[in-house]
Amino acid sequence: MLIVQKYGGTSVGSLERIKAVARRVAESVQAGAKVAVVVSAMSGETDRLIGMAGSLCQRPDEREMDLLLSSGERVSAALTALALKELGVKAMSFTGRQTGIMTDKAHTRAKIEKITATRVKKALDSGSVAVIAGFQGVTEDEDVTTLGRGGSDLTAVALAAALEADLCEIYTDVEGVYTTDPNIVPEARKMEKISYDEMLELASLGAKVLQTRSVEFAKKYSVPLVVKSSFNNAPGTYIVKEDKDMEKVVVSGVTYDKNQSKLTVLGVPDKPGIAGRLFSEIAGAGLVVDMIVQNISPDGRSTDISFTTPRTDSPKGLDIIKKFASEHGARGVDLKDDISKVSIVGVGMRTHSGVASKMFETLAAHNINIMMISTSEIKVSCVIESKYTELAVRVLHEAFGLEKAA
Amino acid sequence: MLIVQKYGGTSVGSLERIKAVARRVAESVQAGAKVAVVVSAMSGETDRLIGMAGSLCQRPDEREMDLLLSSGERVSAALTALALKELGVKAMSFTGRQTGIMTDKAHTRAKIEKITATRVKKALDSGSVAVIAGFQGVTEDEDVTTLGRGGSDLTAVALAAALEADLCEIYTDVEGVYTTDPNIVPEARKMEKISYDEMLELASLGAKVLQTRSVEFAKKYSVPLVVKSSFNNAPGTYIVKEDKDMEKVVVSGVTYDKNQSKLTVLGVPDKPGIAGRLFSEIAGAGLVVDMIVQNISPDGRSTDISFTTPRTDSPKGLDIIKKFASEHGARGVDLKDDISKVSIVGVGMRTHSGVASKMFETLAAHNINIMMISTSEIKVSCVIESKYTELAVRVLHEAFGLEKAA
Repeated sequence: MLIVQKYGGTSVGSLERIKAVARRVAESVQAGAKVAVVVSAMSGETDRLIGMAGSLCQRPDEREMDLLLSSGERVSAALTALALKELGVKAMSFTGRQTGIMTDKAHTRAKIEKITATRVKKALDSGSVAVIAGFQGVTEDEDVTTLGRGGSDLTAVALAAALEADLCEIYTDVEGVYTTDPNIVPEARKMEKISYDEMLELASLGAKVLQTRSVEFAKKYSVPLVVKSSFNNAPGTYIVKEDKDMEKVVVSGVTYDKNQSKLTVLGVPDKPGIAGRLFSEIAGAGLVVDMIVQNISPDGRSTDISFTTPRTDSPKGLDIIKKFASEHGARGVDLKDDISKVSIVGVGMRTHSGVASKMFETLAAHNINIMMISTSEIKVSCVIESKYTELAVRVLHEAFGLEKAA
Repeated sequence: MLIVQKYGGTSVGSLERIKAVARRVAESVQAGAKVAVVVSAMSGETDRLIGMAGSLCQRPDEREMDLLLSSGERVSAALTALALKELGVKAMSFTGRQTGIMTDKAHTRAKIEKITATRVKKALDSGSVAVIAGFQGVTEDEDVTTLGRGGSDLTAVALAAALEADLCEIYTDVEGVYTTDPNIVPEARKMEKISYDEMLELASLGAKVLQTRSVEFAKKYSVPLVVKSSFNNAPGTYIVKEDKDMEKVVVSGVTYDKNQSKLTVLGVPDKPGIAGRLFSEIAGAGLVVDMIVQNISPDGRSTDISFTTPRTDSPKGLDIIKKFASEHGARGVDLKDDISKVSIVGVGMRTHSGVASKMFETLAAHNINIMMISTSEIKVSCVIESKYTELAVRVLHEAFGLEKAA
């Protein structure tokens, strides 16, 4: 059995916590597993380094930032290896480069192109635990790169794929993935098992637990993941390939996103290709568009085009649509920042009908107005007024019976 | 003009200090020089990392320690490069590996075997400042190594040799090398120029300023050094090849070492080869012996053998000589920890006579008893009772007129 274990910043946040991690790794070794451990920087360390760079310059050079930030994980890796040795467990640390994590040259958000893991394999075969500094790689020019926030998750998943590991365990400060945010719904239940696609669609819920890119990577290479707490021994949530059992569950989770804005161009003359022109301008400015709705105006000769973007992009979006509106003789523009998106997610939707209508009815029954709707195979999202977010999440969680195990 | 500048831990000890370093480097660039900058870890950082390792285990693995400790200099290098860019100066950081500093595998005290500096040369040729993380290198297996305490000095000197630099500037928290310890003799004078050999012999004085190995390296490759303060613009002390001017100065400095012990085997039967046997046992135990004196006992048939070792080795030394004494029928042993070594140093001694006798007379005139004497071409050392150290340094400094410029 070959396991990759990843420990996040809080899990290695102090010397005491590093010792606890070492004990947990030692248990896996004693149980007969070969273990590769991927560690993040000690919590607070990355922010400390970013803070130092920020007080030296406004826009730090990205190549320099990567050298700076990669040091945090190297420290954790060395300390974790030392703690393991102190327990009498053979261990050896490896940097991103020593692990053979080759990336492109996109500093601060590099993509992994290849993992050789030659030295890591050799260490594992010789009965040693390999402790790998997460979050980092190296370009073909031997420059240090980092993989973006949460990049240690990606290191772990990619390494698990390269080593053909039996399991990739992601240890963090939560016990797993919940049916919704427990801060809103105290009855939220920890899921035992979830598919890669559901995890990806759970977005805001999932992203707090596991970096999105790492889930995509796990899906692509069919790496079985489990998310669990490093602070106790509770079973976590498995994130695996979709299986027949999962289809029985119509809705697995309710998620929400408060960081969206809704932009509308009002009364655009309804000419062919007008929407295409608008969205190519928006894409050209680098804005991410999530949902799009187009309605015919009451007069029948003009149209209202609405779309959502992340809140941070809304001022830029507003400038673009104002210019577009005046150039194309539209009646005006509108920006709503006080909206949020509530979604239900589940692979069972593919084989069950009436899920969307149940969602709409539930919201309506609580006088929550739906402003926009979008659906995918395994997700239905509604844009609503922001102040109803918590209420919507609660009533949907209850309506789909998520507090009860499937 | 190609200059290597090295900034120690206090010189990069805070973000403000790093900005000051960047301004100084920028001045050199504006004056038309190509500049390679070698930086130490921010002061306190190495001790912090050692402290963390120490609380995880008693004897940290040396390979892991090297990965751990090397991170401090990487952080400084990245921050310094950022500070330079903020001033509009083209700059790029390089790790030990990126600088091509190849070492042997002696972790925590590695020796430099080769420096390619390919990327550093390329950066300098393209008009960029190269900022190099000091203290570190890499083995042929791509493991990170460190060069021992003060290793950043060695990085700077070795890099200066590899780049055939015109000058290697060592910036530190003192203004240069003094004729003696200014804490003991307020009249101590900063030397303008000193030879490599004198610097090496000044030992305790010099070692505070510049790592001994780096001076040896500078001598071997004729790298001109200057030691100066990073806190002001005072001219520093040049450490260069011996020249005719230097011979005129009979004594350049007075140095002392309080961390010595004197061990004696009393009344050893005077057989041929007996001293050789004693010192091969001592060397076998890894003890460093500095001075050796052998006297014939009053009875003419036995001998007293005394030697000095660093204070920390004296308990181990005592064990060895006790065993040796009982095995070879010696009368007994003696350990004196309250001694110190006072030395006068100067290349002018080679061509001037009467220097040693003037030293002995000066000490005698102040009732300071000399317990051991050793001489080299450019140094005379006397072991005296520890309590007279300051007095001896003061009277010798005065006797040889060191407070006056040559």
